[in-house]
Amino acid sequence: MGMVGGGSDAFIGAIHRLAALMDNQIELVCGCFSVNPEISFSSGRSYFLPDKRVYKTYREMFEKESKLPESERMDFVSIVTPNFVHFEPAILALENGFHVVIDKPITFSLDEAKQLKAMVDKTGRILALTHTYSGYPIVKEARERVRRGDIGKIRKIFVEYPQGWLSSKVEDAGNMQASWRTDPKRSGKAGCMGDIGTHAFHLAEYISGLRAVELCADLNTFVPGRLLDDDGAALIRYNNGARGVLIATQVAAGEENALKIRIYGEKGGMEWFQMEPNTLWMKWPDRPAEMVRTGQGYTGAIAKHNTRTPAGHPEGYLEAFANIYRNFSLTIRAIMEGKKPAPEWLDFPTVDDGIRGMQFIDTVVQSGYSDSLKWVKMKE
Amino acid sequence: MGMVGGGSDAFIGAIHRLAALMDNQIELVCGCFSVNPEISFSSGRSYFLPDKRVYKTYREMFEKESKLPESERMDFVSIVTPNFVHFEPAILALENGFHVVIDKPITFSLDEAKQLKAMVDKTGRILALTHTYSGYPIVKEARERVRRGDIGKIRKIFVEYPQGWLSSKVEDAGNMQASWRTDPKRSGKAGCMGDIGTHAFHLAEYISGLRAVELCADLNTFVPGRLLDDDGAALIRYNNGARGVLIATQVAAGEENALKIRIYGEKGGMEWFQMEPNTLWMKWPDRPAEMVRTGQGYTGAIAKHNTRTPAGHPEGYLEAFANIYRNFSLTIRAIMEGKKPAPEWLDFPTVDDGIRGMQFIDTVVQSGYSDSLKWVKMKE
Amino acid sequence: MGMVGGGSDAFIGAIHRLAALMDNQIELVCGCFSVNPEISFSSGRSYFLPDKRVYKTYREMFEKESKLPESERMDFVSIVTPNFVHFEPAILALENGFHVVIDKPITFSLDEAKQLKAMVDKTGRILALTHTYSGYPIVKEARERVRRGDIGKIRKIFVEYPQGWLSSKVEDAGNMQASWRTDPKRSGKAGCMGDIGTHAFHLAEYISGLRAVELCADLNTFVPGRLLDDDGAALIRYNNGARGVLIATQVAAGEENALKIRIYGEKGGMEWFQMEPNTLWMKWPDRPAEMVRTGQGYTGAIAKHNTRTPAGHPEGYLEAFANIYRNFSLTIRAIMEGKKPAPEWLDFPTVDDGIRGMQFIDTVVQSGYSDSLKWVKMKE
Amino acid sequence: MGMVGGGSDAFIGAIHRLAALMDNQIELVCGCFSVNPEISFSSGRSYFLPDKRVYKTYREMFEKESKLPESERMDFVSIVTPNFVHFEPAILALENGFHVVIDKPITFSLDEAKQLKAMVDKTGRILALTHTYSGYPIVKEARERVRRGDIGKIRKIFVEYPQGWLSSKVEDAGNMQASWRTDPKRSGKAGCMGDIGTHAFHLAEYISGLRAVELCADLNTFVPGRLLDDDGAALIRYNNGARGVLIATQVAAGEENALKIRIYGEKGGMEWFQMEPNTLWMKWPDRPAEMVRTGQGYTGAIAKHNTRTPAGHPEGYLEAFANIYRNFSLTIRAIMEGKKPAPEWLDFPTVDDGIRGMQFIDTVVQSGYSDSLKWVKMKE
Repeated sequence: MGMVGGGSDAFIGAIHRLAALMDNQIELVCGCFSVNPEISFSSGRSYFLPDKRVYKTYREMFEKESKLPESERMDFVSIVTPNFVHFEPAILALENGFHVVIDKPITFSLDEAKQLKAMVDKTGRILALTHTYSGYPIVKEARERVRRGDIGKIRKIFVEYPQGWLSSKVEDAGNMQASWRTDPKRSGKAGCMGDIGTHAFHLAEYISGLRAVELCADLNTFVPGRLLDDDGAALIRYNNGARGVLIATQVAAGEENALKIRIYGEKGGMEWFQMEPNTLWMKWPDRPAEMVRTGQGYTGAIAKHNTRTPAGHPEGYLEAFANIYRNFSLTIRAIMEGKKPAPEWLDFPTVDDGIRGMQFIDTVVQSGYSDSLKWVKMKE
Repeated sequence: MGMVGGGSDAFIGAIHRLAALMDNQIELVCGCFSVNPEISFSSGRSYFLPDKRVYKTYREMFEKESKLPESERMDFVSIVTPNFVHFEPAILALENGFHVVIDKPITFSLDEAKQLKAMVDKTGRILALTHTYSGYPIVKEARERVRRGDIGKIRKIFVEYPQGWLSSKVEDAGNMQASWRTDPKRSGKAGCMGDIGTHAFHLAEYISGLRAVELCADLNTFVPGRLLDDDGAALIRYNNGARGVLIATQVAAGEENALKIRIYGEKGGMEWFQMEPNTLWMKWPDRPAEMVRTGQGYTGAIAKHNTRTPAGHPEGYLEAFANIYRNFSLTIRAIMEGKKPAPEWLDFPTVDDGIRGMQFIDTVVQSGYSDSLKWVKMKE
Repeated sequence: MGMVGGGSDAFIGAIHRLAALMDNQIELVCGCFSVNPEISFSSGRSYFLPDKRVYKTYREMFEKESKLPESERMDFVSIVTPNFVHFEPAILALENGFHVVIDKPITFSLDEAKQLKAMVDKTGRILALTHTYSGYPIVKEARERVRRGDIGKIRKIFVEYPQGWLSSKVEDAGNMQASWRTDPKRSGKAGCMGDIGTHAFHLAEYISGLRAVELCADLNTFVPGRLLDDDGAALIRYNNGARGVLIATQVAAGEENALKIRIYGEKGGMEWFQMEPNTLWMKWPDRPAEMVRTGQGYTGAIAKHNTRTPAGHPEGYLEAFANIYRNFSLTIRAIMEGKKPAPEWLDFPTVDDGIRGMQFIDTVVQSGYSDSLKWVKMKE
Repeated sequence: MGMVGGGSDAFIGAIHRLAALMDNQIELVCGCFSVNPEISFSSGRSYFLPDKRVYKTYREMFEKESKLPESERMDFVSIVTPNFVHFEPAILALENGFHVVIDKPITFSLDEAKQLKAMVDKTGRILALTHTYSGYPIVKEARERVRRGDIGKIRKIFVEYPQGWLSSKVEDAGNMQASWRTDPKRSGKAGCMGDIGTHAFHLAEYISGLRAVELCADLNTFVPGRLLDDDGAALIRYNNGARGVLIATQVAAGEENALKIRIYGEKGGMEWFQMEPNTLWMKWPDRPAEMVRTGQGYTGAIAKHNTRTPAGHPEGYLEAFANIYRNFSLTIRAIMEGKKPAPEWLDFPTVDDGIRGMQFIDTVVQSGYSDSLKWVKMKE
């Protein structure tokens, strides 16, 4: 694995490394860790890389790595930069034959996402998108239970993602994470909805297997002087007639990372809360609610494939993240070895999910700032 | 106290009696418990009433009771019939000089509610509306904490009320509660939104002190053949600029009575959940969340006035309900004795809250069934 | 109902009245509410009693009430005084033909309890002991589930009752509840173990159906100058070979009233926590844990008989307390009417449970203060 | 790092590798993964090791590795075999100059533990013991809060560790984990108390800073035919006068890994539950309980040093485990570089904690099987 971004001063890059390395399947071999070469080199050294595998530009990295012998060069690149630096390195990586892991939202604009999809199709390389929350084993169990009809035809999806860290103008107080996320030039046309709304949107479609067809939104910016939305909600209509409510806010003062989803069907309901991530509640009209738990023998094969510890030994955020890397790496290894990946290895978000996220952003922004448009069809 | 409705076959009447009697301040002295005189008389006997204080019609009850000596006659009437039998007995009771307790929603239509308000004003009698959830001590504590500015200016209100008991067509299976609630002739123009949406709406305004000014809703009927909404959601704009999301559904299969409210201000947030009703969460951006509990010495005077047991001895739904009766009875006793009620005694929902609920119903129904109208101003 | 104790300045008396009156089956008709006649009369008036039914001594009350016509006189007396004033009024009440409700622990000493039992047997009157926690509907459901073998043969019982209110010397700071409870002359030979240890002990035997046969305890007094135990724990051996741990402490600073019981059998486990009293957890080795809830249709007949509100409308401490009064009053009414009480009406703690509690106190005190005696057989 | 044990068929070895590798500070370079050379070699290959670094015996490994150039050879060995194969490889590793990580309990007997301590002292090598639960960031925060006196002088420690996985005789059904743990020849003189009781005992001393001085225990074997205890409880007296209750059981059917600790002092209490590992409850007599959370800015420097993700992104069991490896590796690197380790790096369990665990096992076994000995002094 090589990295674009992820210098020792960066947050999400460190998460990617932890997630990639823990399973002893992936090795960090090179990187362009920062636009600042000094930071890049010092980062590389702290990651035990020789200076020759630290590059000043990602362009240089792709070119030089692609000329190394296959046994030496990186197999894929992980792009962990702010949104506006996703598209170009991803395209270049694909063109140079590398598989790609990229953070969400996939690109700066929907148009870029479609171009990226075209390049993925053209090159036959694999692109994984780190919608982390779909990596939790019990989230996968939830999807399987929906698929096999446990809760019947879905009627309602409530997905909410309240955070509080942007309750005040921290972007002016040196918070680098806040700084680019609230800057339309680096983040794109949505703030909160791009950063966490897309996670919520993806999770709902991932578990339910449904597709949103139209939505009606209200977007707000509560902190004075902020340039992008820091709060919003959307009513959603899904393709089977189900209705949803999606809440995403970063001004819910005092909330940490409280992503929660509840889905109700004709026969029962389910609930999952990211901050107690190893529990899936199954609720029934006529019998006691059940607490389904990661690591239990009764979970399905897909959940088990994504579980590392026995029940009661909590798997956390990093293990969910690592599941994306593990399935991605199993898939690309199979491809490199000319084998067919097992179906459960292919269970990671791809460029199609990336496009879906960008469509959501475009739609929610259009609806959210209009006082007259009620239902807006999902952009294509 | 006299009763209209509340025969031994009725649900909410029994709740009203429990709530009214537990504090040893109110005595049941008469009633017209059913349109079926047989049920009415047998009910009366099971409540230890002499037959002469059981009446065949409420009209008869008001007339005869009003001619009894003051020391004997009922002081107020509790109307616990389906919505379409609220208005007439309430008007008659007021005209005959009785105070009134009435279940929500206050009337069949907004127009009736306004007429009732006029009669309350004209007669100077007191009308209490049983929005039970505002009776919980810690809900009152929440309101006080908002008032004194603990969480700062409010930005967000999330209130949700998921139930699952109408997930299938129980109204066809002999469920009497479901039968009238899903019947537009007996319930009014809203089903779920009238039955529980009004509770959620009231709770949000009660705690926050804010007033909704416009809303954008989506109403649905999921169970085939049902005549009223069994599900809905609304985006709300409040008079101080805060935004809200209100969810009310009766098809959330497996949910019991899961009313929850979360309010976020510039300085902090709060959360209350009806099924763990003695806990108020206070959340802060920069220090640990706090669990504020009913019965603790640190709660304020208003919470204490509404608390019966020490911390850790759970107060339940009936005690919340009883607080409405107790404050109402303290108030009417003061009035009967020519005294001024203490401010904390006046803390129960009144005809004004009833009107507010009917305005909500009218507004949410108009918005909820329109695919083009986005924001609808609250009806007046 | 008449009362001994329970003046307007008393805590537990108010609880007894709330519990007795809410179901509209019991009327307060007389009382001797305080040793101070002034408080007694003013209390009586505030309870709407005529002065002639307020008595200066309980002796006077029993004599005068017993001479009133049957339709007028009290049917039973509720004794809500400190422990050292339980025995004499109870004996007198029984001798005068009255049924008795009495707070726990039943008497000052085991010997008194046995004498009381003899008098109950002699007079054929009914004595109910208010071990409140066995009044919760879902606790009764737990007992039924044990009885029908859901968890198999019981192996382990963990019961714990941590409170924090005696963490400092509040008995010197005017706390009347603390004052008599920590005074060996008024409370008996045990403090914490008598006050709450007996509740925990009773609950374990009530749900499990087992009998403790020997125990090994450690009693402590942490607050300097206090005269009775404020903390303790006991290892217990039950008659079927099961082992238990009982914890009772009143110096767990910050705890409210955190009674919890967990029972494990060969086939599964169960857990109940008094501060979330409507939930019973059923735990299984090979399938998801289940959350069994008060008010659900799937609960058994005995739980239903003791439930007033639908699922999700929390029943609290007062309703649990009221269940003891209701079953007791159904029983004595049946007896007064010459009928056989239904089995579920007889489900309230009696003088036998009172004796059991006193045996526990004697045993735990002997073991708890000995550094050499390990297992002490339960006193008889 | 080299490994003894941890073949691809082993449970705890995989956990050790995940924990060791995730921080990109440690590389697996060699191992003797199984007594079965075939498994050992195939395991080595699946860990991407060349065959020459996979050894048939640990003796061979220590000898050959110690002769490799310093830059190539392993720096330390991780011993992840059953208890009876701890002592010999540990002694050999130390003698050959390697640092050691070892799973708990440290050895088969207290005597072995003392010999190991002598060897550690003699060689100056570092030995880390994987009492995982002390690796959680918020557990470290708890210890710091005790140290700075937040809860005052400690009075009570309740520590409990219920598991259910040994409720039936799974050791006869092919469960390898159960097989050696219930075998006195491989596990030592204690079963449950050695396996999980030592964790609970360590956690209590770690957070509280206290030392147990005597205990009174009851040990049981519930599953017929089992050769070691599968359940037990102990009353404990600590060196400052505090009293404790320790519960450890593996027959609590339906429980996963429910380690919980509660500590109460003169000024407040605290509670931590392993299955919600990022929350520390602080409880107060006179103000709301506080929920202290991993990753929050208000946590102390030691918690922060051991935290990888922001608040609300759950850290799990593997991260706690990894903290032991990380602090250990920071320490040995400092030593190898001739530097002084920072104090927070030294925060991992050592050979002294291992001896303490063996002393606990000896004491609890002596007391637990005696019907006459009440208080037994901690073995030395």
